[in-house]
Amino acid sequence: MQNSKKLNSSATDRFENDLEKLQTENSRLHSLLEVTNTLSSVINLETLLFKIMDVVKINLHADRCTVFILDKDKNELWSKVAMGVKQEIRFPADKGIAGFVATSGETLNIPDAYADYRFNPEVDKKTGYKTENMLTMPMRDKRNEVIGVFQVLNRKTGSFTSEDEELLGAISSVAASAVENALLYEEIRKSFTSFIETLSTTLDARDYITSGHSRRVTLYAVQISRLMRLDAAEINRIRYASLLHDIGKIGVPEIVLFKNKKLSDDEYEIIKRHASLTKSILSKIHFQKELKDVPEIASTHHEKIDGSGYPDGLTSADIPLGGKILAVCDVFDALTSRRQYRDRIEIEKVMDIIDKETGTAFEPFVVYEFKSIRLNVLVEILEFGYNENLKKEDLELLKNYSLKDIVQIRINGAKDEEQAHMEEVFMRYYLRTYRMD
Amino acid sequence: MQNSKKLNSSATDRFENDLEKLQTENSRLHSLLEVTNTLSSVINLETLLFKIMDVVKINLHADRCTVFILDKDKNELWSKVAMGVKQEIRFPADKGIAGFVATSGETLNIPDAYADYRFNPEVDKKTGYKTENMLTMPMRDKRNEVIGVFQVLNRKTGSFTSEDEELLGAISSVAASAVENALLYEEIRKSFTSFIETLSTTLDARDYITSGHSRRVTLYAVQISRLMRLDAAEINRIRYASLLHDIGKIGVPEIVLFKNKKLSDDEYEIIKRHASLTKSILSKIHFQKELKDVPEIASTHHEKIDGSGYPDGLTSADIPLGGKILAVCDVFDALTSRRQYRDRIEIEKVMDIIDKETGTAFEPFVVYEFKSIRLNVLVEILEFGYNENLKKEDLELLKNYSLKDIVQIRINGAKDEEQAHMEEVFMRYYLRTYRMD
Repeated sequence: MQNSKKLNSSATDRFENDLEKLQTENSRLHSLLEVTNTLSSVINLETLLFKIMDVVKINLHADRCTVFILDKDKNELWSKVAMGVKQEIRFPADKGIAGFVATSGETLNIPDAYADYRFNPEVDKKTGYKTENMLTMPMRDKRNEVIGVFQVLNRKTGSFTSEDEELLGAISSVAASAVENALLYEEIRKSFTSFIETLSTTLDARDYITSGHSRRVTLYAVQISRLMRLDAAEINRIRYASLLHDIGKIGVPEIVLFKNKKLSDDEYEIIKRHASLTKSILSKIHFQKELKDVPEIASTHHEKIDGSGYPDGLTSADIPLGGKILAVCDVFDALTSRRQYRDRIEIEKVMDIIDKETGTAFEPFVVYEFKSIRLNVLVEILEFGYNENLKKEDLELLKNYSLKDIVQIRINGAKDEEQAHMEEVFMRYYLRTYRMD
Repeated sequence: MQNSKKLNSSATDRFENDLEKLQTENSRLHSLLEVTNTLSSVINLETLLFKIMDVVKINLHADRCTVFILDKDKNELWSKVAMGVKQEIRFPADKGIAGFVATSGETLNIPDAYADYRFNPEVDKKTGYKTENMLTMPMRDKRNEVIGVFQVLNRKTGSFTSEDEELLGAISSVAASAVENALLYEEIRKSFTSFIETLSTTLDARDYITSGHSRRVTLYAVQISRLMRLDAAEINRIRYASLLHDIGKIGVPEIVLFKNKKLSDDEYEIIKRHASLTKSILSKIHFQKELKDVPEIASTHHEKIDGSGYPDGLTSADIPLGGKILAVCDVFDALTSRRQYRDRIEIEKVMDIIDKETGTAFEPFVVYEFKSIRLNVLVEILEFGYNENLKKEDLELLKNYSLKDIVQIRINGAKDEEQAHMEEVFMRYYLRTYRMD
């Protein structure tokens, strides 16, 4: 009986042991599955990296986690957040503990950072943070190549255990494939954008008179869209539509496009064709879902709210908001750009022209938003391509005034010395001249 | 004692029960985690869909699984593989059992397909397959919207259980986010490609003489690359480089580009500038890693292996393979395209010109591969844009001969009736004329 009792009790112990092990394993699997589900749903690289850091921090009971990505082209490690500072940092891929791990492929579990010779205390000094213990592990892709580094700091209790290492190892492989996907997505997105930007710049360059026009119109339009608090997807549509609004000019013969003298009616009709050409070219492109409206926005930049515009003579209700924004930005840039042998038209005259067409050509609330653009932003766009010549203190001053303000001051005169000084600063940039190549 | 024994034994039973449950749960979690890892590593839509079908089939002990994706724009369900047939099929999103599930959002677990009125036996009749039982479940995204349908057929033993439903439900949410990512990736990839294609066509159209040139050169170059068994990534680079090789012509004034008469030396120098312009434009683009060499390939299409080409006078070892392929395709298309008031130059004269420059301008093995191009493919490219006029039986015949063959026959005469007939068929296409608009 004694024996049987003993046997039973030891069997129970064994069962309990097994049960406990299985339960631990189970909860580990559960959290790993949750991590995997969370990570695999994100394709935007920045969002993903923040999610990874968050997930690791929570699952390893740590105070901080930074993920560094290895840029193989430049042999650098970079991160969006390092040591709690939200910005991109970059450093050579063999520097510091993260660099050691990236290069050697080893995991470093350091219970006392300040006792380790590889630890660089400079960052703590700068940020006021106190690193105690740290777990640094390479992130590897399917081919077992290092694509980044996890750095986990200050476990809430004690220092990092071998179970922590194991868990991080498991998270790492999931994170790696999510990062690879996001990098690929990012690359192709960047290719697409830079292709459109380059093309738009190249087309502008064909017509030296309007060089930089599409780029500046894009900057104005995005600025106005932000002032109107449009959502990110809509701003994106407006950005692409602005970059591409004049693409139809490919189809306008240079002999008409570049004519210096007044255009005949026939020639003007040919020029006007560019708006519908923009539409027919862009309509052939398979835009991703979010950008489906780009062709419509781009091709309505010469429509007027009273229906007297082209190519379709649409009225206010039928012109997309993006088209209305583009219309104002397009005319403003045409009126304020420098021409050979000609300075800029005075800003108050420019705005007078726009005011006179507000309510017939332009949508009043768009013009209203346009006038609220800050002068530092305005100068940066007007002088796009020559921005290295803008003085920081000038921009600081201009920031306090809007386009509406400067027009008022130009017409009614400055009310105080600051206004007078600001006006002088603005006009210095507005009227400065360059040798045109 | 009896009681104590009973108690112990019932405790043991309970433990055993718990253990078993935990073990089952554990192995379920393990396989789910594996599924998740597998699926989250794929971003290519087609590969992903095949993986999903595979994974579901294995985990649900089923004979077949098809995933249908819901195309919301067209309100259709589509799949790459249905009922074991490898091809894209599409049908209205409310048709059949998959349609019922997509529309209602309900899961259907049908133990006897032929006893269910919603089952359409037509597919079985066509394919010879015998559907016994089926589990059909909607695939939902994070917003709980249906984005597709799983259809699992013929469980290996018995019919599908409620545990199967539960497991498929868990797989579904992972699969859904992977599919969403892949769709997004696919969309942006398609946008990028179609943008480049549209642009390339538009630029060609600017110069009506060479209309369709870039598109045809691309078709030739891709064909040659395939004959050379280059890998998919390399073929992709060559495709983009071909589409973009003449983009530098944006910077060549129309007055020179369109000149009908012989060009002066100065004018010829201006035309030649397009190759380096292609390079400088494409170099500004952030191509994704896989496409980094596109600018170099595109801008070497006028280099000659003896170093007498432009813009850089590179010799064989320094010209990328893609550039060498482009060089042959570019000249071949220029020589075989129709000009206003002029038919195509005879094919044997074209090849004579190319032969004479092989070893000085062109790389011999590229020309060798070019000559092995099948005549059905050649005619399809020559007549690109007019393909609806090609007769199927003609293409079947032409398939048996290469470019090299037709040149031989044109020079030495046909050896038999089939050859004579083939020559006649080929020449009918080669010499047919269209009204040029």
